[in-house]
Amino acid sequence: MEKLHFASDYMDGAHPRVLEALVWTNGQKTPGYGTDDYSYLARDRIREACGCPEAEIHFLVGGTQANAVCLGALLAPYEGVLAAETGHVSQHEAGAIEFTGHEVLTLPGHDGKIDPAEAEAFCAAFFADENHDHMVFPGAVYVSQPTESGTLYSLAELEALREICDRYGMRLYLDGARLAYALGCPECDVTLPDLGRLCDVFYIGGTKCGALFGEAVVVPKAGLIPHFFTIIKQRGALPAKGRILGLQFLALFSEGLYEEIGRTAVRAADRLRAALSAKGYELCYGSPTNQIFVRLPDERLRELAKQVEYSFWEKSGVDHTVIRLAVGWSTTEDDVRELEALL
Amino acid sequence: MEKLHFASDYMDGAHPRVLEALVWTNGQKTPGYGTDDYSYLARDRIREACGCPEAEIHFLVGGTQANAVCLGALLAPYEGVLAAETGHVSQHEAGAIEFTGHEVLTLPGHDGKIDPAEAEAFCAAFFADENHDHMVFPGAVYVSQPTESGTLYSLAELEALREICDRYGMRLYLDGARLAYALGCPECDVTLPDLGRLCDVFYIGGTKCGALFGEAVVVPKAGLIPHFFTIIKQRGALPAKGRILGLQFLALFSEGLYEEIGRTAVRAADRLRAALSAKGYELCYGSPTNQIFVRLPDERLRELAKQVEYSFWEKSGVDHTVIRLAVGWSTTEDDVRELEALL
Amino acid sequence: MEKLHFASDYMDGAHPRVLEALVWTNGQKTPGYGTDDYSYLARDRIREACGCPEAEIHFLVGGTQANAVCLGALLAPYEGVLAAETGHVSQHEAGAIEFTGHEVLTLPGHDGKIDPAEAEAFCAAFFADENHDHMVFPGAVYVSQPTESGTLYSLAELEALREICDRYGMRLYLDGARLAYALGCPECDVTLPDLGRLCDVFYIGGTKCGALFGEAVVVPKAGLIPHFFTIIKQRGALPAKGRILGLQFLALFSEGLYEEIGRTAVRAADRLRAALSAKGYELCYGSPTNQIFVRLPDERLRELAKQVEYSFWEKSGVDHTVIRLAVGWSTTEDDVRELEALL
Amino acid sequence: MEKLHFASDYMDGAHPRVLEALVWTNGQKTPGYGTDDYSYLARDRIREACGCPEAEIHFLVGGTQANAVCLGALLAPYEGVLAAETGHVSQHEAGAIEFTGHEVLTLPGHDGKIDPAEAEAFCAAFFADENHDHMVFPGAVYVSQPTESGTLYSLAELEALREICDRYGMRLYLDGARLAYALGCPECDVTLPDLGRLCDVFYIGGTKCGALFGEAVVVPKAGLIPHFFTIIKQRGALPAKGRILGLQFLALFSEGLYEEIGRTAVRAADRLRAALSAKGYELCYGSPTNQIFVRLPDERLRELAKQVEYSFWEKSGVDHTVIRLAVGWSTTEDDVRELEALL
Repeated sequence: MEKLHFASDYMDGAHPRVLEALVWTNGQKTPGYGTDDYSYLARDRIREACGCPEAEIHFLVGGTQANAVCLGALLAPYEGVLAAETGHVSQHEAGAIEFTGHEVLTLPGHDGKIDPAEAEAFCAAFFADENHDHMVFPGAVYVSQPTESGTLYSLAELEALREICDRYGMRLYLDGARLAYALGCPECDVTLPDLGRLCDVFYIGGTKCGALFGEAVVVPKAGLIPHFFTIIKQRGALPAKGRILGLQFLALFSEGLYEEIGRTAVRAADRLRAALSAKGYELCYGSPTNQIFVRLPDERLRELAKQVEYSFWEKSGVDHTVIRLAVGWSTTEDDVRELEALL
Repeated sequence: MEKLHFASDYMDGAHPRVLEALVWTNGQKTPGYGTDDYSYLARDRIREACGCPEAEIHFLVGGTQANAVCLGALLAPYEGVLAAETGHVSQHEAGAIEFTGHEVLTLPGHDGKIDPAEAEAFCAAFFADENHDHMVFPGAVYVSQPTESGTLYSLAELEALREICDRYGMRLYLDGARLAYALGCPECDVTLPDLGRLCDVFYIGGTKCGALFGEAVVVPKAGLIPHFFTIIKQRGALPAKGRILGLQFLALFSEGLYEEIGRTAVRAADRLRAALSAKGYELCYGSPTNQIFVRLPDERLRELAKQVEYSFWEKSGVDHTVIRLAVGWSTTEDDVRELEALL
Repeated sequence: MEKLHFASDYMDGAHPRVLEALVWTNGQKTPGYGTDDYSYLARDRIREACGCPEAEIHFLVGGTQANAVCLGALLAPYEGVLAAETGHVSQHEAGAIEFTGHEVLTLPGHDGKIDPAEAEAFCAAFFADENHDHMVFPGAVYVSQPTESGTLYSLAELEALREICDRYGMRLYLDGARLAYALGCPECDVTLPDLGRLCDVFYIGGTKCGALFGEAVVVPKAGLIPHFFTIIKQRGALPAKGRILGLQFLALFSEGLYEEIGRTAVRAADRLRAALSAKGYELCYGSPTNQIFVRLPDERLRELAKQVEYSFWEKSGVDHTVIRLAVGWSTTEDDVRELEALL
Repeated sequence: MEKLHFASDYMDGAHPRVLEALVWTNGQKTPGYGTDDYSYLARDRIREACGCPEAEIHFLVGGTQANAVCLGALLAPYEGVLAAETGHVSQHEAGAIEFTGHEVLTLPGHDGKIDPAEAEAFCAAFFADENHDHMVFPGAVYVSQPTESGTLYSLAELEALREICDRYGMRLYLDGARLAYALGCPECDVTLPDLGRLCDVFYIGGTKCGALFGEAVVVPKAGLIPHFFTIIKQRGALPAKGRILGLQFLALFSEGLYEEIGRTAVRAADRLRAALSAKGYELCYGSPTNQIFVRLPDERLRELAKQVEYSFWEKSGVDHTVIRLAVGWSTTEDDVRELEALL
C-alpha cells in the first residue's frame, strides 16, 4: 500500500486548472521574457487583486531565488536584512543572501515571527550605538506570511513593522511562498491589498500553492528598484519562456482559484487538527494554516512512519518528536480520513 | 492573417511528448529537489547517452543561470573565463558572470567561434607577462555549441581547446543551449560522448530544444565541484519540484526524441537555406544549424516584416540588414513553404 | 590640561625603533609589492619566530582587511565561518565577510571566547541535520587572541579547536590584531610556534602593537591558498611600497621588540588593575591583557570623563557603565600614576 | 656600482617634508578612523585647492583599493564602467572591479586615452540596441590623469566626457594616481578645480607623488554615495590610524608641495626626453609627464640593463623594445645627468 503523503506541499504537479492553461496554449508562439499577452493579463489581475494599479510585477521561478534577487536589489551595500532566526533566509537558503553581499541580522523567532517591539529595540539600539558606522545597517525587514511555523502576522503587527520601517528608513519585504494558505485562513486579517499598501516588495507564491512552479514578485510602487528587469536577468532569474509563468498566474487569479486553493487546504488542515486534538495529541506553535505541527512519542512515530510521509521538525525532550504534516490543494478528504484513522 | 513565426526558438511550449509526460504524472507526489525517481532515471539516460557512467547531473532552469552557476563554481577567485566577444556570457547576460566576481576575458569571435590558436596565444602571452600576478588568470574556456551565430565547433577544434586547457590548467565549459540543433546537424562531427570526454562541465539545453524549460548540467567527473548541490541552492537555482525537470529530460532522452527534434529543425532550416540561396539571398556566418542569418536590402525587409516575425541581427552597410530566422522543433513544413513563397 | 589617553591602543604613531627604521631607509629605492630585501628579511624573522620555516607571509595594511581577505580566500563558496557573537568579524567590520559572499555563523561569546564544546556541538548538529545541504557549511573557525574582551585562549582550548577543525574539515583562523599583548602576558601559554602549528592562517598585528600600521599574515603551509598574491591584489590589499610594511615588521622582530612591547603594556595594565581592585572597582570579563574593563557608577564616570579618555563599552544595570581603558606600548608610568590618582 | 633607478615612481619612501610631519607628530595621541584634527585640516586644504568647499574627502591606502571601493560604490548593480582597454582597472588590478560585481566595458585606448567620440558612440549604440535590457549598462566612465601611458586629457576632452556622462546618466571617475605629474606639467590645462567641477569622484594620488602611501578620494558633492564611510570600512579600506594619512596630505598640500613635486619631476623628465631625442631615440605615446617611453634596439637595451633599472613595456617589432623610464620627486639632477651620459 502506498503511504499517505503529508511530507510537504510541493510534491505534486499543478492544479488541474493551471495545467489546463499550459496544455491548451502549448502550441502558441509568443514573445519571450514576460512580454507576452498572458503575462500582461496576469499582471493586471494581480494588480487588481492587490489594489495596486501601478504595481510592477515580475514572475520568477522559485522562493530562494525571489528572496535573494529582491533583497539583494532592495538593500544598499552597507545594509543587511532583519529576519527571525527561524526565517527561511536565515537558515535554509545556503547563504543566498550573503552571496549577494548582505548580512542577515537575526532576531528571536516567536513561533516563526518577529516581535515588532524587538525589531524596534534592535533599530533603536543600533542607531544609538556611537560605533554604528562600523556595523551593518538594518536596511529591510524580512517576514514570511505564513511563517515557516505556519503562523500568521496580524494586520496590526504588519502595520507596526511598517511604521518601524518608515521610522528607520528600512524596506518591508514579505515572502509569500505559502501566501494562499494565509489568505485562505479564517484567522488571517491581512489581505492582498493590505500587502500592496504595506510592503515595499512581496511575492505571491505559486510553487507551493497550485502552480507547477513560479512566484509573482509585486513591487507596489513601480520603479522602486531601477532596472529591476536587468538585475533579474543578471541573477539568472529571467525565464526565456515567460508566458509559462504568466499563464499559471493568470489561471491562479481567475475565478478565485488562488484563494480557493488556500481555503480548501486550510479547511482540511483544520479538520485534521481537530481530530488530533480530540485524540490528545499536542499541537505546536499554534499554526492555523496548512502546516500542522504535532508532538508525538517516538515510539508512536515509528509506527506512523510506516504508513505516512511527514517531515521531521525537531526533537522535543528525550523521547518525543515534533513532526510537520503539510496539507495542500491536492490533499483529498480521503487522505484526511485515512490519516485520522491511523492516528 | 497571423504572421509567420521565425523570431526565435523559445516561443512555444513543450514538445507534445514532453508535455504528455508532465500531464500524465501531474497527480503523483514525489520528493523534492531532484531526489525523485524520474530525475534519477533521466540522469541515467543522460549518463548513457554521454558515455559517462559516473557523471553528476543537475537540472537547472535556464541558460544564463546555468552559465553563471557553473562558471562561478568552476573558477578560482583569481580566474576569469575566456570567451568569444560575441559569446552569450560576454554580451547578453547582463553581467551575470561578473556578478559572481569573475571577468570574462574576450577573444575575437570568428562567426561566433574562438580560434584555438588565438586562445593558445592569449594564454602563452599571459604567462609570459612578468606582471601576470597582477592580472586575471584565464581559468576556463567558454564555448557554445552551436554558437550564437549558429556555427559549430569541429571535433578537432574542441580537442585543440581541450589540450590548451590541459596545458594551462584551465577548465573547458560548453554551453549547449541549442545542443539538439548541433547533434541533429549532418555537418556536426561532435557527439555527446565527445562532450563527456572533452568538457569539464557542459549543459544540454532543454528550453530551446523541446522542453517547457530546463537545462541539464553534466559534470562528467562527479565531485569536480565539491558540494555543487549547495552552491546551486545558494544561487537560487534549485527547483523545489525537481521532478518537473527530470521528467522533461526523461522524455527528451526517450526514443531518441532529443536528436529527432534537432534533426527535424535542421532539415527544415536546410530547405529554407536552399530556397534563399536559390533566390539569390546572401546567407551569413555559415550557420548549418537551426538558425539562418540572411542579409536583405532594407526595402525588402520592410515588406517582409509585415508577414514574418524575425530577429534583427545587425546593420550591414548603408541599406542592408542581417536578420535571423530561427527554425524550431515546432516549425512545420507549411511554415517553411509559406516563408519560401513570401521570399 | 590635556586629558589622559586610555581610549584605545591605536592612537599614536609607531614605536620609536619602528619609526627609526622608516626614517633611515627613506631615501633608498627598492622594488615594489613586497619583493624588496627588507620584506624578505622580515619574513625570515617571522618564520623563525613562529617555527615555520616554510611559511608564506604577506604584509597587509589593516585588521578588517586581513580578516576579509584571508577568510574570503579560505572559505569555499558554500561555507561560512564560525565566530563568537562578540567577534570583530561578527560585529564591527560592517559586513566585510558577507561582502565576500560568506556568512558569519555566530556562537555564544564567553568573555569574548568560543567554547570548544559549543563549536563541536554546532558542527555535530549541522552534519546530523538531514537538510544541511540547504544550509551554510561551517568551513572555518575564527578566533582572536587576545579577544575583543581582552581574554586569552589557552593552549588546550586552541588544541581542542584544532581537533574540531580536523574532524569537520574546517580551517582555523586567528586574528592577532593585539597579539603582542597576548604573547607578553604571563597568563598566556600559547606561543608563536603554537600558532604556527595549530592555525591554517593567522596574522600578527602591527597597527595596535607598535607599527605605524600593518599586519603580517602567516600561512604556515605555503601554497595553502593558491595564488594568494593575486587574490590580495584583487581585494585592493597589496601595497605598492611593500617595503614600508616589511621594514616595520623587521624592526618589530628585531631584538625582541614585539614581545617587549606586549610585556611592557601588560605590566602597566596589571598595575592599573591592581589599583582599581584595591579601590573597590569591579573589573569585568577577566581580561589579563592590555585592555581593562571596569564597571563604574555613572555619576563617577561623568567626573572621570573630564580628565580621561576611555571607550564606552556597555551599560550595566540602571546606573552603571562598563568602560574600557586601553594601555599601549606608549603608555608611560606617569600616565598610569596619574590615572591611579584620579580614580 | 649601484644601478640608476628609473624603474618606477614608487620605489622610495616619502618626501622629506612628508616624513617630517610623521616624525614630529609620532608621539601624539589622536582619535582614529580619520576623525583627528590633522585629517580635518588636510581635508580643508584639499577642498580649498579643488574649489569644492562642500566636498567629502576620504583617505585610502592605495590606488587599486580606491578604484574598486569608489567604482563599486558608484555603480548600480546593473551597471559597468567604461574604460580604455589599457586602463589600470582593465588590466592590472587582478579583477578588482569584477570582484565587486561589475564589468569593465573596454573602449580602444589611444595612447592610453578614451576618445570621447567613441564613448559617445558606444553609449548611443547601447541605448539604441533593443536588447540592451539584457546587457550591462554603461554607468560610469573611468579615466586616469595622467594615463598609464603618461598622456593627458585636455580640459576640452574632460568636458566632452562630462557632457556624455550627463547625457547618458553616467558618473565620471578620475584616477589620479600620478596626478601631481599632470598638475605639474606645462602642457596640462586641467586644474584641481576643473576636476572638482567635472568629476563625480576622483582621487589625488599620494603613493606615487611624495607620500609614504595614501590616496585622497574627493567627492565634490558630499553625500553622493550614502554612508560611504561604512562602505569603505566594509571593503577593508578604513585605516585605524587615519591621522597618518591626513598628516601626509596636510604636508603635501602645504606650501605648494604637491605641485612642486610634480613640476620638479616633469622638468627632469623633459630634460631627459630632450636628451633622448637629440640622440635619435624614438619617444613613444607622446607622454609629456613623468613617465618616458623609449623605443630601443634590443642590443642597446641589453647594455643599458646593466646600469639602469627601467620597466619593460612592450616588444616593438622583431628586435626593438619599448621601455619605461619613470622620473619621480626624488630623481636628482645627477641621476638625470648620469643617465644622459649612458645613453
